[in-house]
This record gives sequence, structure tokens and C-alpha cells, in this order.
Amino acid sequence: MGEKIRIGIAGYGNLGRGVEAAVARTPDMELVGVFTRREPAAVTPQADGTRVYGWDALARFEDEVDVLILCGGSKEDLPRQGPELAARFNTVDSFDTHARIPEYFASVDGPARAAGTTAVISTGWDPGLFSLNRVLGESILPAGETYTFWGRGVSQGHSDAVRKVPGVAAGVQYTIPSEEAVEAVRRGDRPELSTREKHVRECFVVLEDGADADTVRQAIVTMPHYFEPYDTTVHFITADELTRDHAGIPHGGFVIRSGETGPADDPSGQVYEFSLKLGSNPGFTSSVLVAYARAAHRMNARGDVGAKTLYDVAPGLLSPKTPEQLRAEDL
Amino acid sequence: MGEKIRIGIAGYGNLGRGVEAAVARTPDMELVGVFTRREPAAVTPQADGTRVYGWDALARFEDEVDVLILCGGSKEDLPRQGPELAARFNTVDSFDTHARIPEYFASVDGPARAAGTTAVISTGWDPGLFSLNRVLGESILPAGETYTFWGRGVSQGHSDAVRKVPGVAAGVQYTIPSEEAVEAVRRGDRPELSTREKHVRECFVVLEDGADADTVRQAIVTMPHYFEPYDTTVHFITADELTRDHAGIPHGGFVIRSGETGPADDPSGQVYEFSLKLGSNPGFTSSVLVAYARAAHRMNARGDVGAKTLYDVAPGLLSPKTPEQLRAEDL
Repeated sequence: MGEKIRIGIAGYGNLGRGVEAAVARTPDMELVGVFTRREPAAVTPQADGTRVYGWDALARFEDEVDVLILCGGSKEDLPRQGPELAARFNTVDSFDTHARIPEYFASVDGPARAAGTTAVISTGWDPGLFSLNRVLGESILPAGETYTFWGRGVSQGHSDAVRKVPGVAAGVQYTIPSEEAVEAVRRGDRPELSTREKHVRECFVVLEDGADADTVRQAIVTMPHYFEPYDTTVHFITADELTRDHAGIPHGGFVIRSGETGPADDPSGQVYEFSLKLGSNPGFTSSVLVAYARAAHRMNARGDVGAKTLYDVAPGLLSPKTPEQLRAEDL
Repeated sequence: MGEKIRIGIAGYGNLGRGVEAAVARTPDMELVGVFTRREPAAVTPQADGTRVYGWDALARFEDEVDVLILCGGSKEDLPRQGPELAARFNTVDSFDTHARIPEYFASVDGPARAAGTTAVISTGWDPGLFSLNRVLGESILPAGETYTFWGRGVSQGHSDAVRKVPGVAAGVQYTIPSEEAVEAVRRGDRPELSTREKHVRECFVVLEDGADADTVRQAIVTMPHYFEPYDTTVHFITADELTRDHAGIPHGGFVIRSGETGPADDPSGQVYEFSLKLGSNPGFTSSVLVAYARAAHRMNARGDVGAKTLYDVAPGLLSPKTPEQLRAEDL
């Protein structure tokens, strides 16, 4: 193993802490530090040895950081930070507003090409490994259907919607794949399924003092877009139960490609499935970012510059092993 | 879509027929023909329009075939054909003798580099997509364990071993993942499992006239290496039942990476799983070969020559879509 890959973390929320922990578990990398837009002295890092710098300090670290992992949000932070930082660093991010990815790609690609940096955008698990498996499944089985199921996992948007209902003191919402739908797809039935048929929603709610449970339940299950189209269950629990049983951020899901091969008059059914069962959504996403940081560093070293998605990244570049090791040990 | 990718098939057994059918399902490709070492007139292709040529005719098609898909066996055919044909064509193969892959890679790489061709070796599902997922899982979750389970599927080697037992007229062997072991791994238990604990074996046997069932069963279940180390079940059936119920070549399996992320004193469990449930093993393998043929053609066009494995192939190259389409539609 040569010199370690020097990683910087830009933004220090759940994702930034996940990257910090992931780099610590990765022998061929070292963490240069965390860069925060908050007052550095007010930020306590998870690990004792982690250095915390202000955002302006990034200017001093352009030669000290091999890859900067952008841990800001897709709504406010990345549209501004992605293009700006790709002009100065190799970057990796988890930009996840699916509909705006082409626009974001273009905004990062120009500055990265001009500066000779490599910027891997929109990695993680969806967009990310799920996207990768959708394309692999469709490329290998052109005759077939692709199904994506999410969950069991916490949906932040839906949890926020629950918490805004009058009478709700606190709460969390889980998206859960419909077992019936998953089983039909796994059997190779290739059903036509609407989003509402693929998922059910489960809410755990702490009521405010004096709030009426039935009124709250009704307000939730009839909420347009968020809950009305789904089979929704509402459980009322205490604040202690919420803290004890629902503090984690689990998630996951499945991508299934169900297709057929062989002559049209004698086809064979084929089912391709990728699934994740994540104890911590940000913990896993950040581990994906770290693996793609290794690839960004290597692609940049060989002159492969500009914005990239995981469709552009040869899988061997993600591994700390050499191509010779991979062929001998893993193929 | 530009001009179609022109595919040749070298060798016409189960895999060659699978490639023939897969190319027919692939709008951006066309089949130039099948090349066989048998007498061409004695070979009846699956589809009416398929042309069949003798092996020597390959010399006339060096400018007519963009990618030649090698459908011979790993033991006798590919070690000789792979290097020889990579000197004349872009090639894709499914060389699957895991232990000899480095040697085979080197034997193909030299001629391919000298000739300026691109040769993707050892693709399919194992080696192939399973290898890809072993490396993805290990790269993303460096702290963890990887488990590969095979089945439920027909094992040719074990079926051959059953058929050589005195008193056996015909038979087939299925390798089946142990449900208990799979469940423990999926739960995130990270058990230590020997090969014998991961799989059970099931045999369906047609007896020769007058053969004694108990003697045959005993000979099978005590066979060293093949069956003795496993929990093996033997069923005796009629020749008609064998034809009716066991003519297919199903297979499949799972690759599971069970790992953890986050700080060592507060880790989160993460389970990554890839699985295949294949109605036809050669039908799926050949579909993977065809997708990698597209990638081989594109890599060659951009000057990326020599022997490659799927670790070297950016996933977007497998798809008929453009990078712009992939970012807009699949990411």
C-alpha cells in the first residue's frame, strides 16, 4: 500500500459523522479534518483526534486534501457547494434530488473539467447502489420489469408531515414494503404495481396533552399525497417509548429485475435482486461515499476528470486491493 | 442509436444457444452467425435466420464481427481459444476455473494488447456478478463478513458423480442453501460457517434394473468430497419423472455482506445482499455475456485494449442508453 488517501469532510451532520467513522475503519485513508460553517470551537467531533476547521480554512488545504467528501444537504448546500468546491478539490457527494441530477451534473462538470478535478456526484444507495442495480438488471435482462421497494425505514419527509399535525408532540414514520407485493415480484409474477400497492406506512405518535387520538389519526391517514394514497397505521406511544424504540435511523429496500431469457416460444424466468437492510441510513450512505472517494482519487490520478456518476466508475476502483489481487482473490 | 453491434458466437452448446436468443432480444445488436467446430450442415440453429459457419470461416469474418462471444468450455476450449481469438477479435468469455483466472488473464492480455483488441474474461454470474458484489460489499463495508451461497440449482459436477455410481441409470443433483444458515446471515448474526454448514445436497436418481436402492444411496451419501461432507438426501424416481420434472437447468444463490459502520463503541449493523433466482443457468449467463459484449465494443472504440474483467468495466458501458439518458432516467 502506498501513501494514504487524505480525506476532508465538508459539513458535519449525521452524514459527516458517518464519513468520519468510515474513514477510521479504512486502512488506506486518513482524515485531514472536518470543515464546518459553524464556529469550529462549538463543534465537538465524534472521535478525539478529529480536527475541526472553519469553512474558510479550506483555502489552506487545497494541497493537503486528496478528496473532499461533501456532506451537506441536496436542497440548500450542494447546489452551491458542489460546483464551487469541484473547482478546487476532487469531490464526492450524495446529491439526491433525482429530477435535478442532470442540471447538477452539468453545474459540477464544467468547473471540474476546467480545474482538472474529478467529482463523483449522487452516490449513496438511492441514488447510488440502487441506481447501479436498476441499470445492471435492465442491461442484462432487456425483457423484463424493474421494481424498487423502499424500507423498512424512517422517511424524514413523512415524519416531518406527521409532526406538523395539530395535537402531535413528536413522532416518526416508517415506510414498509408490502409483503404481498414483494412476494409476487420475487416469484417472477411481474405484476403491475402502483406506488400505493408497493408500500404501507406506519406512524408512531406521541400526543400533546389533551389531544384526541381519533382526531389525530384521522388527520394523518387522510393527508393528501403523504398518507391518503397508502394503507397507513397509526400507533400512539409515550415519549419514553419513542426515545427507547425509535431513536435509530434504519432504512433499506430492494431493487428487483424480473425478466426472461431464451427463445420467445420457450422462455425461462430470471429474477435478479439487490437488497439492503441498514441499521443506520447515514452510516451506510457515508460508507458508500468513502469507497467512491477512493475511486475519485484514482480516476483523477489517471487523468479522468470532470463530473462522474457511479455509472462511470469501474467497480475495481472502489476496492483497496490491486487489480491483480482482485482477480486472484475475489473473481 | 447508431449502427448495430455485430456479434459472432464461437461454439454452439447451451451457452451459444443462450447468446443467440439474447442477441435476438437486444435491439442494438445483430448476430453475424454461429461458428462451430462441428460440420456446419449438421448443426441446426435454434432460430431460422441464424447462419452457421465452420470454424475456419472465422478468418473471413475478422472485419465483419465487432465482438466474438466465446461459448466453449473452461477446461478444454477456452485456454486455447481465448488467447488465439483475442489476437483477432474483441472477445467476451465465461472462463470459470476460479483458481486459474490469473494465468488465463495473462494468456489473453498479451495477444489482445499486441492486436489492439479488448477481451473481457470470466464474466457471467460466478465468476461474474457474484464476484462484483463480493468486491462492492467488501469495499463499502470493510468491517464485516462475506457469505456466498449457491442454489437451489443443478450442479453438473455432482450430477456426473451421481451418474457414475454403479446401479444408477440416470440422475441429477441439486445444491441447496441451508435455510437456517441463510437466515442467520440475513439477521446480521455473522456466524462462522463451513461449506458443509451452508449447503445441503439433494439427488434424484433413476435406478438400473435390479439395482438395490439402499446400496446406491449408501454409495452416494458416503462419497468423499462430493457428498460425505454434506447433509445429502437421495430420492428414487422413474425415468419419466426425471424427464418431466428435472429437464431444466435452474440455479442461483446469494452473496451477502454483513458488516457494521459507525464508531466502534456504537456500531450499526448493515446487511448488503445480492441474489439470483435463475430459471435457466446458461440462459442468464449468456445474457450477461451479451451485456459485456456491448461494453467490450465501446471500450475498444475508446482505445481501452487488453484483457479485462468486470472489475475494469464501468457499469454504464453495459447499457444501451447514453450516459445522459442514464443520469436522467435511472439515477
